[in-house]
Amino acid sequence: MARTIGSDGEKTEAAIREAAVNLIARHGYEAVSMRRLAAEVGVQAAALYRYFPTKEELLFTLMREHMEELIAAWRAADPGPADSAARLAAFVRNHIVFHVARRHATHVSNMELRSLSPVRLTAVLRLRATYEKELRGILRTGAAAGAFTVDDPALTAMAIIQMITGVIVWFRPDERLSVREVADKYHTMTMRLVAAAGHAEEKNVHAHDAVRAG
Amino acid sequence: MARTIGSDGEKTEAAIREAAVNLIARHGYEAVSMRRLAAEVGVQAAALYRYFPTKEELLFTLMREHMEELIAAWRAADPGPADSAARLAAFVRNHIVFHVARRHATHVSNMELRSLSPVRLTAVLRLRATYEKELRGILRTGAAAGAFTVDDPALTAMAIIQMITGVIVWFRPDERLSVREVADKYHTMTMRLVAAAGHAEEKNVHAHDAVRAG
Repeated sequence: MARTIGSDGEKTEAAIREAAVNLIARHGYEAVSMRRLAAEVGVQAAALYRYFPTKEELLFTLMREHMEELIAAWRAADPGPADSAARLAAFVRNHIVFHVARRHATHVSNMELRSLSPVRLTAVLRLRATYEKELRGILRTGAAAGAFTVDDPALTAMAIIQMITGVIVWFRPDERLSVREVADKYHTMTMRLVAAAGHAEEKNVHAHDAVRAG
Repeated sequence: MARTIGSDGEKTEAAIREAAVNLIARHGYEAVSMRRLAAEVGVQAAALYRYFPTKEELLFTLMREHMEELIAAWRAADPGPADSAARLAAFVRNHIVFHVARRHATHVSNMELRSLSPVRLTAVLRLRATYEKELRGILRTGAAAGAFTVDDPALTAMAIIQMITGVIVWFRPDERLSVREVADKYHTMTMRLVAAAGHAEEKNVHAHDAVRAG
């Protein structure tokens, strides 16, 4: 709704979102008041309420859109079901690139499920389930085709997601590895984790690049 | 110090710690005042300050002891350097059992690094580094002996730790898998992740049990 009120309004809303993500990641949702957020953005608290009627509505919007954007990014990156290994590679790469670019939003999304009321929590968890189901599907299809060895697709999907999301805990853009190099290394580890058939350790590290470029 | 003042004092201190971990995990450190914590424990705020002079001292104590206990648990579980695969298995099992039993403390430890002052942050990060170095050592030794294939021990250690810590996000004791079964499955995945030589998928899942029982 706020997105239809013109460019000044859009700028203000974007500033509110950015400040909210940074403040909540730094201090925790409960410790950040609408007043404090308004001061950070440089507007009156009353202005904030025009965009977000409640603080929880703001949190929910941030968390819902984070998941919607992640799912949309994956749909755009998905090379399709023909090759499970290429698909898993694309999933890992997209996930890492997406989250490294949104470290604070990821912290908020992971930590502040505790702060959502039941209906909104359910809505966010449903989006998460949609996303995780994509990875489970890749693992199941690949295992059925003999491309992967996966004992427990649900548990393996969780393990992979935790492993690749964990990049944001330690990764800093100015350190020894680029995002691309980190994604390559996690791709290799993921392929080993699912015992990908014919995944030659050294040779195939960059195979997904050829797939995505093609 | 508080531990020397007798059993009533010890009980109060234990109650403070438990309430603090639960409140901070639920609401975030910044949102939990000493007054709120005292009310939860059922003591006056002044009593709290006898045990923990400042709120940050309390947080630091919780986070430091969490890491010290983790390191001590690992030293007790460590089967020694003779067999890298057995050692890695013991590391994964100990890590999962330890963290599943301390879900709230783990959330606090992971989230509230942001709330420590620089000197205390450094102290906690040093303990983390000590622990992570153990895993890197296992990976390096195993790779040198040809037991594992590990391209980047530092990054692989982070990936494994994130993967196995992630159990606490989804694991609930009353669900389909026991802690032991979860640890077994993560052990299998970890062995694949490091391309453990001769790790026969089906047969060796329980090999580490024999090692630990022996």
